[in-house]
Amino acid sequence: MSKPLFGVPLKPVNLGLATFAQSLRDQGVNVIAVDWRPPAEGYADLTHTRSGIDIDAANAEAHRRITSGRPLLVGMGIARETIPGFHARLLCHAGPPIAWEQMCGPMRGAIVGAALYEGWASTPAEAATLAASGEIDFAPCHHYHAVGPMAGIISPSMPIFVVRNETYGNLAYCTQNEGLGKVLRYGAYGPEIITRLKWMEKELYPTLARALDKTGPIDLRALIAQALHMGDEGHNRNRAGTSLLLRILSPALVEAIDDKAIVARVLRFIDSNDHFFLNLSMPAAKAMLEPAHGIPGSSVVTVMARNGTDFGLRVSGLGDRWFIAPAGEPVGLFFPGYSQADANPDIGDSAITETAGFGGFAIAGAPAIAQFVGGAPADALQATREMYEITVGEHAAFTVPILNFRGTPVGIDVRKVVETGILPRIDTGIAHKEAGIGQVGAGLLTAPMGCFTLAFAALREM
Amino acid sequence: MSKPLFGVPLKPVNLGLATFAQSLRDQGVNVIAVDWRPPAEGYADLTHTRSGIDIDAANAEAHRRITSGRPLLVGMGIARETIPGFHARLLCHAGPPIAWEQMCGPMRGAIVGAALYEGWASTPAEAATLAASGEIDFAPCHHYHAVGPMAGIISPSMPIFVVRNETYGNLAYCTQNEGLGKVLRYGAYGPEIITRLKWMEKELYPTLARALDKTGPIDLRALIAQALHMGDEGHNRNRAGTSLLLRILSPALVEAIDDKAIVARVLRFIDSNDHFFLNLSMPAAKAMLEPAHGIPGSSVVTVMARNGTDFGLRVSGLGDRWFIAPAGEPVGLFFPGYSQADANPDIGDSAITETAGFGGFAIAGAPAIAQFVGGAPADALQATREMYEITVGEHAAFTVPILNFRGTPVGIDVRKVVETGILPRIDTGIAHKEAGIGQVGAGLLTAPMGCFTLAFAALREM
Repeated sequence: MSKPLFGVPLKPVNLGLATFAQSLRDQGVNVIAVDWRPPAEGYADLTHTRSGIDIDAANAEAHRRITSGRPLLVGMGIARETIPGFHARLLCHAGPPIAWEQMCGPMRGAIVGAALYEGWASTPAEAATLAASGEIDFAPCHHYHAVGPMAGIISPSMPIFVVRNETYGNLAYCTQNEGLGKVLRYGAYGPEIITRLKWMEKELYPTLARALDKTGPIDLRALIAQALHMGDEGHNRNRAGTSLLLRILSPALVEAIDDKAIVARVLRFIDSNDHFFLNLSMPAAKAMLEPAHGIPGSSVVTVMARNGTDFGLRVSGLGDRWFIAPAGEPVGLFFPGYSQADANPDIGDSAITETAGFGGFAIAGAPAIAQFVGGAPADALQATREMYEITVGEHAAFTVPILNFRGTPVGIDVRKVVETGILPRIDTGIAHKEAGIGQVGAGLLTAPMGCFTLAFAALREM
Repeated sequence: MSKPLFGVPLKPVNLGLATFAQSLRDQGVNVIAVDWRPPAEGYADLTHTRSGIDIDAANAEAHRRITSGRPLLVGMGIARETIPGFHARLLCHAGPPIAWEQMCGPMRGAIVGAALYEGWASTPAEAATLAASGEIDFAPCHHYHAVGPMAGIISPSMPIFVVRNETYGNLAYCTQNEGLGKVLRYGAYGPEIITRLKWMEKELYPTLARALDKTGPIDLRALIAQALHMGDEGHNRNRAGTSLLLRILSPALVEAIDDKAIVARVLRFIDSNDHFFLNLSMPAAKAMLEPAHGIPGSSVVTVMARNGTDFGLRVSGLGDRWFIAPAGEPVGLFFPGYSQADANPDIGDSAITETAGFGGFAIAGAPAIAQFVGGAPADALQATREMYEITVGEHAAFTVPILNFRGTPVGIDVRKVVETGILPRIDTGIAHKEAGIGQVGAGLLTAPMGCFTLAFAALREM
């Protein structure tokens, strides 16, 4: 509680960033929040870097690279054998770098689960002790060309999808999606979670890998484009993407595998999980964005990612730096028995979909998502329309039927976000804030302004 | 050419029905068409039958029966063994009754193909002679609780899906969809068409039938409802419906059939044809509508069907009579090398989907269809909104996300059509007008007013 310094409790007025207000509320302070946005004046004049690079031209090049990328699913592998630099004591996680001490409940839960899955520990307590000991290296998935939904843990033995951007040759990686509810990525680590992960390693992975040998590369950009015409936005809704993928995989699975019980189990597993395709739409987005990173002078965002504590950005022209602010709280629809009070702050690398111009940026084509927060389809149209205000251009391959087949907004320009005060809209799942529980809902939120003001300051020095 | 009776060529002015103008144009007459609609006065007063039945109450009951129906795919069979009353020399066709002499090119082509498929003839010429001889009985599919897309031919040996309306117990039937392009239902009858039909009888049908034994009844209403949220309208676009059906069938196919080459062929055949689900959405619609037929005093349309020459209606309270007018000409998108001049008049029982409240009535959720005629998504929204003007109510199970998840318009009231001049909008494939060629495009049109004015006249006598 704040002390009544002036004889009455303090009522701080918070202008702007809600996260500051939340920090005060967390300390029991009664805050009046005012939705203040910085004025446009003073921001619009950043047209060139100090070295004279035309920022708009650099951003046009970033936009060209993102939208000309063609991500193909080319195969699968085991993380430690396939991802360059991966090693036997590494766990990759979602979001920007973070130490065990700062990790949120679901991130810790997922790490405990991964340690049990790897056989590094035999009880959750032992796993937590190991994780705190410094004997495990933690690193963002993004440091390894990878992405992970929610906690986003990739451990050495986990199978991964390999996505190649055919236009630029770069690779991206992601694990297989486990399904809904009590799953590792939402911080659950019970015996059934470990058993399922082992099945995914020993049966699902080799079966899918053999089917992919039969199908050859699968064009993920084409699948995402079609799914966006079928009510998906490729982040919180992947029913069409999963269905279209299954159409391609089914005959190949049948031909590649003699044991029909295995084929039926694999088909049923994928059919039972409409988010199976998320773990392909995410690395597809990552593969499209990486060639746009490192363009001198570009203010285009190439990574948005959350670790459940912090939200981090990377910007094309600003090297490998992360621009970090506290992660926001998603508002959404909760499973029976859970409420907003159970929600962990925003977590996961899945905001890579918004960064690549779909997910929340394509929500106009997925009005069912708007219902998560009691919104109407008109709100979904408005949400996508707003994103054109903060992006460099449109995606030629990803279109929104109801917006007259207009290309989705893509290429977030840090300058435009700061200038307009319009924040990127992100769709997300919601994890319970405690380790070991799992998913409790799904919802929406915006990226925190703090990351963008920091990145903008860095752009001024560029 | 019209004779210059008055020294100059006649220029008839046609008020209203475009089909009359077209008849004159077909004779080389230069017609000025005026889009005249009958005035509302004089129609709105038909509230009770002569025997005193409240027509609105009867229509509410029809609406209740249509929307409470729950069509399930319960199995398959061979037409002559499964459809009550079918016999060894019967061919069912789309639309209202028609004799060989009046049949259009694609209908004749499909009958020639069916005669070859049944082994009744060994050459197309022989088949045509047989068809003209009177030795084959022709009857509408609708007279046998069945529906057929385009020419809609059902011959005795053809396999059929069996759909049961779980709420009312009635059955409906439809053949398996053959695919796109050169296919029997579009009037093609070449050797590859007959070979494919034989494969569908000898391999596809028994394989699917065994898979259905594994799956148990499949809820088609639920599949249509989901597909309507995924860019389908269940008539001209069935990509989502086909995908969702494949998700259910795939594991059952794998478990039911030992020969994996067969399973892979069946999966690939269905995957290659986004309209596979049409031959399930149609009998689902038929199964939902039949219990609403025969309600004394009801002015609700229970059948709209075209045979390529005539468009026919049936009305709930008007018994087994068909109300017939010349079939219209669909306007649409043509395959390369074809144009409007190649188009056959409107054909097929598939307007049963519009009659049941989807297809063209749900086009707001399938904006890709509007593109067929160069239309924008706004046109699709408007098309669905108009249909609320001529229907009794909304469908609780079929909703349109972009219209705030409003139920689709369902239960066409003949009185409202005549009163407003608004005609039911129908999506359709386009057949070449000559026998033996096949599909040349896809498009849109409205039902002809003539059927409704005839039915309205009958309602006044009721």
